[in-house]
Formats: sequence, structure tokens, C-alpha cells
Amino acid sequence: MGNCIVPYCDGPKSTNIRWTLPAVCFVWQTAMIILFGVFVRYNGESDAHWAEFKMARNITSDIDNDFYFRYPSFQDVHVMIFVGFGFLMTFLKRYSFGGVGFNFLVAAFGLQWALLMQGWFHSLDYTDGMIKIGIENLINADFCVAGCLIAYGAVLGKVSPVQLMVMTLFGITLFAVEEYIISDLLHARDAGGSMVIHIFGGYYGLAISWVLYRPNLKESSQLQGSVYHSDVFAMIGTLFLWMFWPSFNSATCDHGDGQHRAAINTYLSLAATVLTTFAISSLSQKHGKLDMVHIQNSTLAGGVAVGTAAEFMLMPYGSLIVGFCCGLLSTLGYLYITPFMEKKLKIQDTCGIHNLHAMPVGKLYLLYLTPAVQGGYQAAAMCVAVCFGIGGGTLVGLILRMPIWGDVTDDNCFNDEFYWEVPDEEEIVVPVLEYNNHMTPNKHTDM
Amino acid sequence: MGNCIVPYCDGPKSTNIRWTLPAVCFVWQTAMIILFGVFVRYNGESDAHWAEFKMARNITSDIDNDFYFRYPSFQDVHVMIFVGFGFLMTFLKRYSFGGVGFNFLVAAFGLQWALLMQGWFHSLDYTDGMIKIGIENLINADFCVAGCLIAYGAVLGKVSPVQLMVMTLFGITLFAVEEYIISDLLHARDAGGSMVIHIFGGYYGLAISWVLYRPNLKESSQLQGSVYHSDVFAMIGTLFLWMFWPSFNSATCDHGDGQHRAAINTYLSLAATVLTTFAISSLSQKHGKLDMVHIQNSTLAGGVAVGTAAEFMLMPYGSLIVGFCCGLLSTLGYLYITPFMEKKLKIQDTCGIHNLHAMPVGKLYLLYLTPAVQGGYQAAAMCVAVCFGIGGGTLVGLILRMPIWGDVTDDNCFNDEFYWEVPDEEEIVVPVLEYNNHMTPNKHTDM
Amino acid sequence: MGNCIVPYCDGPKSTNIRWTLPAVCFVWQTAMIILFGVFVRYNGESDAHWAEFKMARNITSDIDNDFYFRYPSFQDVHVMIFVGFGFLMTFLKRYSFGGVGFNFLVAAFGLQWALLMQGWFHSLDYTDGMIKIGIENLINADFCVAGCLIAYGAVLGKVSPVQLMVMTLFGITLFAVEEYIISDLLHARDAGGSMVIHIFGGYYGLAISWVLYRPNLKESSQLQGSVYHSDVFAMIGTLFLWMFWPSFNSATCDHGDGQHRAAINTYLSLAATVLTTFAISSLSQKHGKLDMVHIQNSTLAGGVAVGTAAEFMLMPYGSLIVGFCCGLLSTLGYLYITPFMEKKLKIQDTCGIHNLHAMPVGKLYLLYLTPAVQGGYQAAAMCVAVCFGIGGGTLVGLILRMPIWGDVTDDNCFNDEFYWEVPDEEEIVVPVLEYNNHMTPNKHTDM
Repeated sequence: MGNCIVPYCDGPKSTNIRWTLPAVCFVWQTAMIILFGVFVRYNGESDAHWAEFKMARNITSDIDNDFYFRYPSFQDVHVMIFVGFGFLMTFLKRYSFGGVGFNFLVAAFGLQWALLMQGWFHSLDYTDGMIKIGIENLINADFCVAGCLIAYGAVLGKVSPVQLMVMTLFGITLFAVEEYIISDLLHARDAGGSMVIHIFGGYYGLAISWVLYRPNLKESSQLQGSVYHSDVFAMIGTLFLWMFWPSFNSATCDHGDGQHRAAINTYLSLAATVLTTFAISSLSQKHGKLDMVHIQNSTLAGGVAVGTAAEFMLMPYGSLIVGFCCGLLSTLGYLYITPFMEKKLKIQDTCGIHNLHAMPVGKLYLLYLTPAVQGGYQAAAMCVAVCFGIGGGTLVGLILRMPIWGDVTDDNCFNDEFYWEVPDEEEIVVPVLEYNNHMTPNKHTDM
Repeated sequence: MGNCIVPYCDGPKSTNIRWTLPAVCFVWQTAMIILFGVFVRYNGESDAHWAEFKMARNITSDIDNDFYFRYPSFQDVHVMIFVGFGFLMTFLKRYSFGGVGFNFLVAAFGLQWALLMQGWFHSLDYTDGMIKIGIENLINADFCVAGCLIAYGAVLGKVSPVQLMVMTLFGITLFAVEEYIISDLLHARDAGGSMVIHIFGGYYGLAISWVLYRPNLKESSQLQGSVYHSDVFAMIGTLFLWMFWPSFNSATCDHGDGQHRAAINTYLSLAATVLTTFAISSLSQKHGKLDMVHIQNSTLAGGVAVGTAAEFMLMPYGSLIVGFCCGLLSTLGYLYITPFMEKKLKIQDTCGIHNLHAMPVGKLYLLYLTPAVQGGYQAAAMCVAVCFGIGGGTLVGLILRMPIWGDVTDDNCFNDEFYWEVPDEEEIVVPVLEYNNHMTPNKHTDM
Repeated sequence: MGNCIVPYCDGPKSTNIRWTLPAVCFVWQTAMIILFGVFVRYNGESDAHWAEFKMARNITSDIDNDFYFRYPSFQDVHVMIFVGFGFLMTFLKRYSFGGVGFNFLVAAFGLQWALLMQGWFHSLDYTDGMIKIGIENLINADFCVAGCLIAYGAVLGKVSPVQLMVMTLFGITLFAVEEYIISDLLHARDAGGSMVIHIFGGYYGLAISWVLYRPNLKESSQLQGSVYHSDVFAMIGTLFLWMFWPSFNSATCDHGDGQHRAAINTYLSLAATVLTTFAISSLSQKHGKLDMVHIQNSTLAGGVAVGTAAEFMLMPYGSLIVGFCCGLLSTLGYLYITPFMEKKLKIQDTCGIHNLHAMPVGKLYLLYLTPAVQGGYQAAAMCVAVCFGIGGGTLVGLILRMPIWGDVTDDNCFNDEFYWEVPDEEEIVVPVLEYNNHMTPNKHTDM
């Protein structure tokens, strides 16, 4: 049935991924195993020789193993990637399986590929040519994956899982190169990866969405919305992203005050964002009613923006100012920029990632907070991120336009039916009925 | 539409918050920025001068930064505040947005105001008159917010977001003063803040609910209940509160055995509570059926009660005894005290916070466990908490009765429609239908 | 109504647990309090004498208290037990209350009994005959509980809460003995407890399900399935299990590189499992559609299998290979073994725990990875686990067949109505209607 040939929609299309998806999964996973076998080993702190490693560095206690500095933050970041991003994308009424399920798939592949790509650039041990991994590599792999999941937000409901895998493969690759240029060549500070992750991921997704423009998407409009409970599910994603963002921005900071300060700055920035988001959301509606789309997304903008400078001495009030502006700008983005982009620029941004991740104003604001010279490098880094995002996204978008990936037609977007075995909803009444019949005749007479 | 003028309900009322809510958010957030600019800085462990700070105190490793002692517990507490309390309040069939959404708003504001209020009382650096914040301040701010969220439980579905903001502003203020008296003047031990947080928060909410008594609330009765999935959502809140309560009670304890013991005591007390809650819940129903209201709330009572003495040498069996009694008392409270309070005392307690947070018996029990003299101070502290709760709540309740806050009429309570853009539920069937028509005619013939 | 006497189903049965459940809860909890009073005390690191303890061992900083090495992992494991297992079992359309609720009950009882049983075997202080508990005991108690929750998966929806309590009482007891034999007598390594927990729990549950075979279960078939949102709820459980499995496998490893390496190995193994699971799931369906049952369960197989050897020097590629095979085997298990077991072996496995926990192939694979001699002990340990599981399960199953436990008839399985007060689903439309009438006449004219 997913294999429908619908004559009246733009050209017959097959959504059958029975061969392509398994092929991609098996081949790529096998490739990962081989490449890991050739290139990846444990680093000094995760290897059985930790005892010697410790002695050689006069480390007195096991607690000084980097694992204990970073593992709690790593687990928080891990939750953000799989539950945070995953559930944030369950808001569509009939695409919750695809939202959380495909997020799961591409993240699981992405982190393996990221360990390799980032390893070659940052963790290569030149004595034996091996990539040596530890807890910090896992965190960075999750960061790298975040960039691709942000991009997924722009095309949510409009692409096949195979296309998502391709997006991820190229996305991680571009990310690693871009990150290398920004952090190693330009030496720009980017603790929470505002630029490396969010600017790149945002523009990467928008560019792909632009190339994959769907002229008749309105024919799917009845599914491009939420239902009551799908909005509550999405709040799970929002809250876990919001709560753990301090870990996201502090996870890879310097031990001690660096991590400590980054967590405080992010905590404060996010708090301020919530208030301005609620304010603008209410202000924008005829009767002051709040819009779940804003609450689910714009409340996170403060964490994105403060990321670049999370460990700087922003001062608590500085963090609040960043958050204040981001909530305001992001919500306005949903109100004015997203519709404009769709109508004028032909960019269909399902989750409005532009307003949360790509919009540069929040960051530009930050640049003014940071010392001028450093700000110069930040600006250069910003350009690199934007160029990689738009350039890479356009290229990948063209690849994804090939008719072999099993994506749906414009009138069948945002529908899990094509890639998932979806249970019949009607049956939900059966238990109630069957139950009223012979078990509680009295119950309904009471009423 | 939120702006309904309903003649037959008690006086025409406007639920339009388009100007009041944004005004409150913008003005108060701006005030926060200014006050933080004037008063708040980083403390020795989160400041860039940590290196000197470390040397001055002969601290050998960065791992001895308080951040690493408390950050994991902080994140757990943070989850309790936003996901725990937030989802616990999604149980109402048509007020899930308000439950989790307004919880998000007031908590985000409350923690900022709490950092200031508590800072002036506890973290003021007299050398420069600045409040110096670190990870422990963030935890205490979350604690402070918890008190107000408990109060929210009593008025859930009956107040406007603007009223909640006012409740929070005064609640945090009263909390900080009460906390100062209890901990600094009476020197009462209250690790998990059983008194400072739960007793105060509980009575504060009940007093407000009493002043805001709604005579015709039964007209909203069809919405004052759950549906199947909203009860499952509420279990998310229950479980995260239950699981992380050991962190809540140990987060600010002394390093080492203090934190260690507090976690163990809370873990055990909560386990015992679950069994007695299930027992009483089953015993109370004609056919032994369990009631989700009890499971969602009373199972947490053990964590509340053990809080005061969490780091004492209660002994494992002592903790179990506390939990045993609390589950029993709390569930009985839902069965007998809540209905009594509504009928006789005219106190409408939506979430039954009295049985979970305010009921003092569980704590009185604890006092008997603690040495007599210390018990004396505990009792005095208890009185302070109760007085601040009832007194402050009554005052704030009167303020909230002013007709300017945009709250709903008695017959429109527990309904998200007035403050949120709620998606149309009908549409959920559309995909199934539309899908059956032209895509899977075969599917239903199969069946 | 729970007390239905249905003539046409196999013999009249009462599902009234009004006396049995409370009795079991009260008596057993009281027994726990007495036994804890007689046997359980704090250990050196959670006792108030920590200061002397520290001095005696030349421990310089409080951070070297085992609490700080293990507490973050403990909390992750705790989340896996209550939210992970709990929500994984909410997938049934009308048994979500029972899935998450009974999981909550038996886990809360089980961890207390586990602290005692494991304490007598592993934490007995022979100087005073007391069990001395600390954070590691809490983790092990949670592990022990996991074994019983796995067994619950096989009988989900077919047993009463009283039967579950009995299952747990015996399960924990058998577990502790089996664990003692495997770890203390055979000295087999089993960090993540692949054998001790998963093999035992799996076969224990399957044996019970076999003895409790229900010939007419198909009469409940309309309820033995999911609905759209119950599948999304189940994904919460899946993801928290998946994300925190690295903590599960590393929580009790040696400090330093042991914990570090176990986390890395598990992280990698699980990532590979996801890809092969999606591949086989898609490959198995006529149109390549994915099956939520596979995604919710098989994606976790990699964590189970790598558990035994999590802290070994598996090498990153080794972990990937384990994960690769497990996802493949587990998904095939759901496709071929589960139906076979139900038809031929008369074993009804609701959650398909055989494919996730019991299937030994993944582990056998591991044995080949581990040195031969050690492998010998591993094999012996495996036998012990299997024997205890099947033997114990059969015995307990026979006890559970007594007609006194209040379980439902074959045609009433997977239905919360018998043990829970379930809200009426119809009412959900009421707000929308009532709201359309007098509040937003304009809204629908717009459309």
C-alpha cells in the first residue's frame, strides 16, 4: 500500500524502501565496522593501561579520569539528541513515528560516522595513526549529530528515511571539515557550538528544503498540524532540550570554572528566553492566546545563542540579555519570517529551524558582547558555517532529487502510513464498547 | 473567542490576556536584568579567577570544584521542576497545555527572582555588596520555585497565567524570608526542605484557593477529570519526581556521607510509600480497583516527609517507616480530607496538594525520630512555615480577586481553549479516512 | 464490575483484589521494615563516621567517596527501571496503566527485598552480622529488579498485580542465589549482568508464561495491539533504556578506565544495533514498512549482549560487531521465533522478551570474543542462569496457577478495566462541542 501509484498527483512515485533502506543500513554499518577496526582504539583514560597513564601524569585518584568530569554532561547531551530532538518532532498529528523513529535511526548512524570524521581531524595519534577515543569524543559525536538533526527539522515529513541517511552522511562530513576550519584554523571559541552546530545545521537544512521545494504541499495541509496529545508529546522534547542545555554548552568546556560558568550562563539565558517567548506569542494573537509552536521552539533560542560564548565571563546579566533578545527574535521569526520564506523564498521549513537555529541576529548580538578582535574571528567563523551550510545543502539537495530515494508525493507528506505499519485508530473504542456490554451495565445507567 | 462575555455565569468576564501577560513578562524580565546587573556576579568557583581561588585553598584538583559535587543532582532537580511538576499537572483531559506550559513559564521567572531573594539573604559578599552565585544557588533557586509550583497545584485550571505570575512573585519573596528565619535564625535542619518548601508551598496554595473559592465550579465538572492518555502523561511527571527525589533531598547536603546518606534514606522511604499507597488505593474501591490519582501523587509522599531529616542517621528501617506511614496517610487524605475540605472548608484543591505536601503528620512523625531539643526547633520552624503559607496565601488571594487578571468563569475552568490555540481534535480521523479512500482499498477488504 | 462472573469463559473467575493486594503490600512491607531493622545499616561511606573512615584510608577529598563515582550512573539506571521498563510496557492500547503502574509497584517492592537478599550474600559485615549498604548496593538492587521486570514483559496483561508480587518475591530470591553462584563461585565477569539479569529474567518469564498458557487468548486479540499514541509512549521507554544503557553496563565497573571503557563499548554496540534492526524490520514487510515492535525492542539488544564483557578490551570495532549481530538476530526473533514459540511451544510472550533478553546467540558470540578459559566459566555461568530461570519459573508458574490470585479470564486479558478505575474516553469530545456552541461560533464559519 505504501507502494501506491497515484496517477493524479505529480507523477507516479514509489515509496517502497524495502531494498534501499536495508541496503544502506547494512552496507554503511559494515563500512563502519571495517573503518573502526582499522582506525579506532581507546585513549589513555579508557584503555586498560590507565594505571600507567595515571602514574605518568602524577594523577593521584581515579576520580581525575576525564570520565568523571564529563560523563553526567554526556548523558544529558545524549538525552537531548534522542529524546529532545526526537520528541520535539512528534508534534505532527500523523508523523510522530517518523519524527522520533527516523531521528533515532540517523542519530545512531551519525554518531559512528562522526567519531571517525572528527577523530581524523582532532584525535589522531600520530605515533600509530590511530584515532584514540574517550568520553569527550562521544560528546563531540553527539554534537555533530545535532547539526544533522536540526537539518532534519526543516524537511520533516517530506523526505524518506533513505534520503535522511544520505543527508546525514554528507552532513557529518561537511560538519567535521567546517568544525576543523573554525576551531583549529580560525581558533574561534564555540563551546556550545552555536556556529559549528546551529548555524551550519540550520542553513544546511534550509538549503536542502529549498532545493526540494514542493509546489503542491498545501494538498497535505490537513496533516501539517498537531493534535492535542501530539503537542504534549512535543513538550517532552522541548523540556529535555531546555533543561539539559546547560550540559550541552558546558560538556566540553575546560574543567573547573569553565564548565561551571557555562552551565550558569546557559541556565540564565534560557530562563529569560521563556518569558519573552510567552510575551510575544500572546501579543501576536487576537485574544492573547498562546501558540504551542512558539512555546515548543522559541523557548530554546537562548541556549543556542549563548552557546558560542557560554564559558566567557558574560556576567549573569549578560546571559539574561542574550536570552531576552533571543526569545523575542525567535518568536517574531515564527510569526513573520517563516511565512515570508515559504511564500517568497520557496523555502518550506516544517519545524521553523530558521528561527531557532539559523537566525544569526542572536549571535551577532553576542559578537558585540565579545572582545572586538575575538569578534573578528567569530565573524569569519560565522561565514564559514553559513557557506558550508548553504553550499553543502544545495549540493546534497540536488542528489536527493534523484527519483530513486522513495520519497512521497506532495499530497502525501506528513503521513506515517508510507513508511510505518500504523495501528488502526478505530479499535480504540472497541474495549470501551465490549466493556460496557457485559461488564458494567450499571455504570452507564448511573450517568 | 477567549474574550467571551457569558451573561449567565457570575458576571461578565474577559479572559483576554493579550496586554497583561506580555506586559508582566517584559517588565519583570527587564527588572531582572537590571537587578542582576547591579547585584549578581559569579562566585569563587564559577569565576575566571578559580585558579587563584583553588591555590589559596590548597585545592589540588579541578574535580574539587563544587560543580562536580552537585551538578548531577542539580540536573535531576531541574528535571523534577520542569518535567516532574509540569507533567504531573497534565492529567486533566483538556488542561494539559496549561499544566505543563504555565508551569514552564512561572518556573522560568521564579528561578531568576529566587536567585536574587535568596542571594540577598544567603550569598551576599559583604566586601563588595554583590551576590556571588554558583551551582548551589541554582539548586536553591529550583527549590524555591518548587514551593510555588506546589501552590499552583491547588489552583490548577482555575487561574490565569497572569495570576500565576503574581502568585510566584509573592511566593518567592515570602519563601526567601521564611527560609531565612527557619535556617538562619532557628537553625532548623531541613535538607530536602520538607518544611521550607512543602509545608509553606502547600498552605500558601490552599490559602489562595480558599480565598478564590468558586461556588459554581461543578459547572466545569465534565472537564475536571482525566482521559486515558492524559493519565499516562501524568505518570511521566510522577516517575521523574519519584526517581529523582533522592537527588532533591541530597543536592545541598554536606559533601561525602551527608549526600550519600540522604540519597539512601530517600530512596528507601519512597519505595515503602509505593506499597502502602497501592494498598490503601485498592482497599478503598468496591472491587479493589486502583485509582490513578493516588498512584500519581501519594507515592511521592515519602520523599516529602523524609526531606527534613534526609541526612540524619535515620537508619534504613527508619526511612522505611517514614515512607510506610506517608503513603498510608497521603492516600487516606485523598479519600477523606480532600472531599471534606471542599465541602466543609470551601477549599478546592485541584491536585490534592494538601495530602502530598501540606499534611504535617508525616513530618510530625519525623520529629519524634529526631532528638527532642532539635525537634523543638523543628516544631518552631514548622509554625513559621505554616504561618507564612496561610498568611501570605490569604493576602495574595485577595490581590488575585481583583477583576483585572483575566481569569475564567466558574463554568469554564480546566479548559485550555481560553489561553491557548488548541488544535481541532476532529481532524485526527481525517488522515485515516482520506488514507482508506484512495490508498489502501485492499487493506480493509483484507479484514 | 471487576468482580465479573463470566459464564462462557473458562470457568467463573473473580478479579477482585481488594483484600489480597492490600494484604500482600502491608504484610510484606512490614516484614521489610522488621528485617531492615534487624539487618541493614549504612556502610563506611554513607555513615556519619565517614570522616574517620576517610582518615583511616588516607582519602584526601570527599569527592573520593564512592557516591561521586557511581551516583550519576545510579540515577540513570533508576530511570531505566521505572521509566524505561515502565513505558516500554505502555504500548498496549488498553493496558498502559497496568504496564507502567504495576511495573512501579513490583520494582518498589523488589528493590527492598533485593537489598536484603544481595546484602546477605555480598555485603554482610561479619564483625557485627549487619548488611552495610551504600550507593553500589542501590545499583545492584535496581539490577536485581530488572530481572523481574524482564519476566513481567512475558506475562504483561495476563496476570494480576498479586501474581506479579509473588513473581517478584521468588524472582529476587532466585536471582540473588544465582548471582552468588555465578559471580562468587564461578567468578564469571558479568558487568552489565547479561547473564545474571537478562538470561535469568528472560527464561524465568518464559517458563512462567509457559505454565500459565492461555488456550483462548485469541479472544482478547482485539486488545493485544497498540494505538498510535500508545506506540509513542512506548518509545519513551525504549529511548531511555537505549540512552542510559552505557550507565547500566558501567555503573558497577572498576573506577577509572573500567567504567570509562564499559560506557564506550555499550554506546557503540547500541548504535550498530539500531541500523541492523531498521534494516531487518524494513526487509521483512511487503512494502518495506517499519514495525514499531521491532524498533521499540530490538534496538536494545546490543546493550544486553555487550553487557557481559562491557569492561573488557573489546575494542570499538568489537562492540560494533556485537551490536550488528544482535539487532539482526533480535529482529529475526520477533519475525520467526515468537510466532513459533506461541504455536509450537505454547509460550505466549507478550513483549517478545525472548528476542531481547533470553536469546543466547548474541552472548555466545561474545564468548568467542573472550579468552577461552574465561569463556569456559562464562559458559558454565550461562547454564546456571538458564537453569535457575527455567526451573524457578516453572515452579513459580505452578504456584501462580492457584485460583486465588484474581487473574482475568482468557477473553479479558490486556484490559486495564479489571484493576484500574479507567476514565470514560467519550468525554474527550465534550469540551470541543460545548466550546463550539457558545464560545466560538465564528471559528467554524471561518473554515
